[in-house]
Amino acid sequence: MTSTPDPPAAAAVRVRLDLSYDGAGFSGWARQPHVRTVQAVLEEATARLLRRPEPPRLTVAGRTDAGVHARGQVAHADVPAEAWARAEDHALRRLAALLPPDVRVHAIRVVPAAFDARFSALWRRYSYRVSDDPVGVDPLRRHDTVAHRRPLDVEAMNAAARALLGEHDFAAFCRRRAGATSIRRLIRLEWVREGDAVAVATVLATAFCHNMVRALVGAMFAVGDGRRPIGWPRDVLERGVRDPAVHVAPPHGLCLEEVRYPPDGALAESRGVTAAPARARDPGGAP
Amino acid sequence: MTSTPDPPAAAAVRVRLDLSYDGAGFSGWARQPHVRTVQAVLEEATARLLRRPEPPRLTVAGRTDAGVHARGQVAHADVPAEAWARAEDHALRRLAALLPPDVRVHAIRVVPAAFDARFSALWRRYSYRVSDDPVGVDPLRRHDTVAHRRPLDVEAMNAAARALLGEHDFAAFCRRRAGATSIRRLIRLEWVREGDAVAVATVLATAFCHNMVRALVGAMFAVGDGRRPIGWPRDVLERGVRDPAVHVAPPHGLCLEEVRYPPDGALAESRGVTAAPARARDPGGAP
Repeated sequence: MTSTPDPPAAAAVRVRLDLSYDGAGFSGWARQPHVRTVQAVLEEATARLLRRPEPPRLTVAGRTDAGVHARGQVAHADVPAEAWARAEDHALRRLAALLPPDVRVHAIRVVPAAFDARFSALWRRYSYRVSDDPVGVDPLRRHDTVAHRRPLDVEAMNAAARALLGEHDFAAFCRRRAGATSIRRLIRLEWVREGDAVAVATVLATAFCHNMVRALVGAMFAVGDGRRPIGWPRDVLERGVRDPAVHVAPPHGLCLEEVRYPPDGALAESRGVTAAPARARDPGGAP
Repeated sequence: MTSTPDPPAAAAVRVRLDLSYDGAGFSGWARQPHVRTVQAVLEEATARLLRRPEPPRLTVAGRTDAGVHARGQVAHADVPAEAWARAEDHALRRLAALLPPDVRVHAIRVVPAAFDARFSALWRRYSYRVSDDPVGVDPLRRHDTVAHRRPLDVEAMNAAARALLGEHDFAAFCRRRAGATSIRRLIRLEWVREGDAVAVATVLATAFCHNMVRALVGAMFAVGDGRRPIGWPRDVLERGVRDPAVHVAPPHGLCLEEVRYPPDGALAESRGVTAAPARARDPGGAP
C-alpha cells in the first residue's frame, strides 16, 4: 500500500507463507549447496519480491526429505517492514510469477511475532498414497502414488496402526539425531481405500522425527501384504531400536497435507507447551 | 494355457486391450516416424509378449493428439491364435513389465471378430481439467490440469454448453479432413467445480472429430471468463466454419475417460449403425 507510512528501516514484520510443492524436482526442503531445494527457491523468490539483496531466512513446519510433496506446508520469515509494505498488495500474484510451476504460494500474510511455523504447530497431517494394482500405478498419478507389488490388506494395516497410537518413544521408527528426543504423540494413523487399487493413509501427530512417517508406512506394508503379523509394528516400537526389517517407504507417496496452529491470540502459551524440552526438542524433523 | 490345442498357424484371434497413459511423453497415439507414440510403444510390447517379429497392428477407439491423456482407452488387434494361447495366462503381468510406467494395460481379452475398437464404439467420454486459481495449478496436478488466468463462471459455461447438445455439423470446431464428415451427436457437455479452484468438464459424444473437444473447451473458456456472451459458441456452430476466435485449449487438460460398446452379442448390428456413411465416416478422429 503506497499510503502506508514508512516505518523505521530496522523494523521487521513476521510473514507467514502457505505453500505446496511437487517434491520430485527438489532435494528436499532444506537448503544445501549445489542442489535444488524448496527453501532456496522460495527464499530467492521472496528476496526478489521484496527487492532485497539478501534472501530472508525461512523457518518451516515440516522439513520434508527429497521427493516428498506438500499441499499444506507453512513457513515464516522476518522481513523488513518497509519492503513488505511496498510488496504486500501484489505479493501473491508476483510470487506466482516468480516461482517455478512446481512450487505455489497460496497465502502470504503478516502474523504476530509469537507465531513460529515450526514451534507453534499443534499437529502435522501427512497422507501416503499406494497402489497395489497388479498392473501398476495409474500413469497420471504415478508422481504421487507408490506401487506395491503385493495386495494390501487395509483392515490388517489399520489393526496394526491402532496399536501405535498415543505418546511413545518412536526411536525404532526414526533416523537417530544426536541430542534429539524421539518421543512423539501419534494421534491418527488410518488407511482408506480410494477405488479398488489405491489405499491412502492419514498420519497425524504433534510432530514427527526424521523418516518416521515413511518407516511407519513401511512397517504397515509388511503387515498388509502378509509378511508380518498385525502385532509386529507394536513389538518393534517397544524394542525401541531401528529394526532393519522395517523398510522406509519411498518418498513420492508422502505429502504434507496440513499443519494446525492455535489462533493468533493463543500463540505464546502454545509455544511454551510445544517447546517443553522433554516433549519436542526437534518437532520439525523431516518425516 | 498349455492344455489349449494348437490351432492352425494361420488362425487369428481378435484381442481387446484396455489401457491408460500419461500423454506428456508421447507425440500422440498414432505411429509416426522418429517420435515416441503410444501406438508404437504398445505394438512393440505386444510383439514381445507374443514373441512375434512383426508387431500386431492396433486399432484404437480415440486417436489422441500429442499431450492428451487416457484412462479408458480401448484398442484391438488380430493376433496369431497360437501365439495368444501361449501368452494368455501371464499376458497382463508380462505387459506390465514390458511397458514403461507412462502406459498401463488394465485388461486384455479375446473378443468376437465383430468387435472393432473404433467402429463398434457407442460413445466416448472425455474429461477436461482446468484451474482458475489466481496463484496457479496445484503442483501435484499440473500434469493434467490447465491453468486459466481469469476466473471462470461455470454456470455461464454450462448455459453455453447446453445450446450445443444434439446432432450437428461440428465443422466450426473441427480441424477439417478431406472426405470426412463432421456431423456428430454431442450427448453431454457439463462443467462441475472440484474444490474452489478447479473445474472439470465431462464431454460425451458418439464420436469426435479432430480437435473437437479442445475447441469446444476453448469456446467455453471465452464464455466463462466473460470475453464472449453465452450464445457465442452456438453462433459459431451455426456459421459452420472455423472461427479464429475459438482457441483450441491445451492438450494436457484432456483425458479420454471411457469408451462404451454394446454387449458382445449385439456387436454386428451396432457396427452397421455406427458405420453408416452420413453419421460416422470418421468416428475415431482425435478430439
